[in-house]
Amino acid sequence: MKIIPVLVMGCGGVGRQLLHHIVSCRPLHAKQGVHLRVIGVCDSRSLVVASDVLTTELNDKILLEICNVKLGGASLSNLSSFGECKLFSRTESTRNVIDIATVLGKATGLACVDCSASSDTVGLLKQVVDLGCCIVLANKKPLTSTIEDYNKLIMHPRCIRHESTVGAGLPVIASLTRMLSSGDPIHHIVGSLSGTLGYIMSEVEEGKPLSQVVKAAKNLGYTEPDPRDDLGGMDVARKALILARLLGQQMDLDDIKVESLFPKEMGPDVMPIDHFLDSGVLSLDNDIQERVTKASLRGNVLRYACMVECSSSRCEVGLQEFPKDSPLGRLRGSDNVLVVYSRCYNERPLVIQGAGAGNDTTAAGVLADILDLQDLF
Amino acid sequence: MKIIPVLVMGCGGVGRQLLHHIVSCRPLHAKQGVHLRVIGVCDSRSLVVASDVLTTELNDKILLEICNVKLGGASLSNLSSFGECKLFSRTESTRNVIDIATVLGKATGLACVDCSASSDTVGLLKQVVDLGCCIVLANKKPLTSTIEDYNKLIMHPRCIRHESTVGAGLPVIASLTRMLSSGDPIHHIVGSLSGTLGYIMSEVEEGKPLSQVVKAAKNLGYTEPDPRDDLGGMDVARKALILARLLGQQMDLDDIKVESLFPKEMGPDVMPIDHFLDSGVLSLDNDIQERVTKASLRGNVLRYACMVECSSSRCEVGLQEFPKDSPLGRLRGSDNVLVVYSRCYNERPLVIQGAGAGNDTTAAGVLADILDLQDLF
Repeated sequence: MKIIPVLVMGCGGVGRQLLHHIVSCRPLHAKQGVHLRVIGVCDSRSLVVASDVLTTELNDKILLEICNVKLGGASLSNLSSFGECKLFSRTESTRNVIDIATVLGKATGLACVDCSASSDTVGLLKQVVDLGCCIVLANKKPLTSTIEDYNKLIMHPRCIRHESTVGAGLPVIASLTRMLSSGDPIHHIVGSLSGTLGYIMSEVEEGKPLSQVVKAAKNLGYTEPDPRDDLGGMDVARKALILARLLGQQMDLDDIKVESLFPKEMGPDVMPIDHFLDSGVLSLDNDIQERVTKASLRGNVLRYACMVECSSSRCEVGLQEFPKDSPLGRLRGSDNVLVVYSRCYNERPLVIQGAGAGNDTTAAGVLADILDLQDLF
Repeated sequence: MKIIPVLVMGCGGVGRQLLHHIVSCRPLHAKQGVHLRVIGVCDSRSLVVASDVLTTELNDKILLEICNVKLGGASLSNLSSFGECKLFSRTESTRNVIDIATVLGKATGLACVDCSASSDTVGLLKQVVDLGCCIVLANKKPLTSTIEDYNKLIMHPRCIRHESTVGAGLPVIASLTRMLSSGDPIHHIVGSLSGTLGYIMSEVEEGKPLSQVVKAAKNLGYTEPDPRDDLGGMDVARKALILARLLGQQMDLDDIKVESLFPKEMGPDVMPIDHFLDSGVLSLDNDIQERVTKASLRGNVLRYACMVECSSSRCEVGLQEFPKDSPLGRLRGSDNVLVVYSRCYNERPLVIQGAGAGNDTTAAGVLADILDLQDLF
């Protein structure tokens, strides 16, 4: 039986779902000869660790209790019983994770899994990599930090996986990595990589005013609490940067041309959210509708797309017109799609499409990443 | 530098292209810290082996000469110079490959790559697996032999890769494998997995008679020398079987319902190829055109599809109607597409589409497979 020690950082939606998946996949993984030994779980305030990280684990009962406590919105410190495990506070957490990585990096190996949405984990992850551990990321922030941070994180390319940073569990990173290793040079990629903006643009295409669509999407829970976090395009820009860097472009977030769907004077620093939703976004309706109509007259539709052009090192995200009968033009609802042009996929591109959001899918992508590391253990 | 010893079996189009890719990827792989040490190459008549399989290799000059000799249609025994390497005849080949696998399986590991189209390699591959070596297949035949043979070949699931057996280099097997390992249960898959039949059916859809399309496809080199090898559906059935077995179905080729596009009395055993092309296929025109028209009246198009339904263990290949506005309905030309329904991809499926044929793409898939094994070396 191959044993993979796992430390899970972040137990919001994705982290919680990952723990659930790990527990429910026990019989499947046993059949595959693999056991995921979860030795620690942390949220932003606490760290729960197995009594002896070299030999014991957080058992399934504790993992499910962690899920329940976190689902209720409480902190890990509210766990009713710790059994054999230990609890550390925020101030002790980082030091403890490094201690664990130091011990396990030398002994059994460790998969350190970042399911948080924090930009604070990059320092820790760099140290963990230095200590010979593997990292698996659903968190985009560490990979979209400075290029120096990025190059450090991917220093041992076989020891990092990050499928779920782009398109949730869609096999986007895995497929591009295969193409890169087979020497099939990727010329350019175009994608629609935000389920939220995909939904919004296909509703607007049907003739609904942007303001109504945004409010409906917010009410359905499709957007971030402040929809401007989606409409500003920075989330897509981060995904574009991750793809561009994977394709070898040594660029930073600042090098990406990002089109925001609202002007600066409606930004979160300037305009309260209620004001934006009640009046700000209304003033954007006409302009968007006009662009949709103009596109339609040309047989096109408007999509919020990301584009990486390797030869010219160009990376852009924003509204773009696509023929109705193209992979991006045909997109409906919250699906993601990535279109890849390379030597092998030249006239007709490689197209990967499917649900690109959701905790279940995202966590499934993380779990596939962990399993994909198994030959290193 | 990680060194992967490689033995290439079969140097027709795909094997030759693989050797080319290996040579042209040298700088790329060096950058990735990997070296593919090709220790032997065989065709159906001869085996060329490095002088000492533990330490030496067939250098790039010899590999390219092998490509040239094979491109000219000659056998490996026609190589003008063997330098430091040895040549064995067919009768000695198998014994030698096993000797090599015995030595390298224990010492350095070996990736044994089957780029042939032969059903004779399965015995050898089973022994190679037993000796602790990895296998990489572009050849469908070994995986579509008996279920006993199949289970033996996949005995060590981490030591086998076979992306290029289905959809050429399209990341189909890799993506399904990821989903399986993450415990996302696959409910059913539908695909168009023959570039040839895809091309034929989209031409027939445009109103051209089947007989003309088949002859044109043959002249363009899109079909097998005898187009009935495509039209009979057995090639698609083999791909369907590989996918069904990957999804856990313990079935044999006989369990698949296969629709042939020509009746038994026009089979290769009964009717000479010229007779089929001159008159046989003409008599099929009306029936196909009628089905295309009927489908069209329902807003559908006719595709030669493969379908695996996991819950009912059903596996079928044949003509099926699909809505014009569906992934299979939209397919044009020789593209392949696979549509996957699972827990995570439920209402809206995962769709993978792109060129599913061609030596370049197929060999790129094989090379990605070899690189994907690197952590075992």
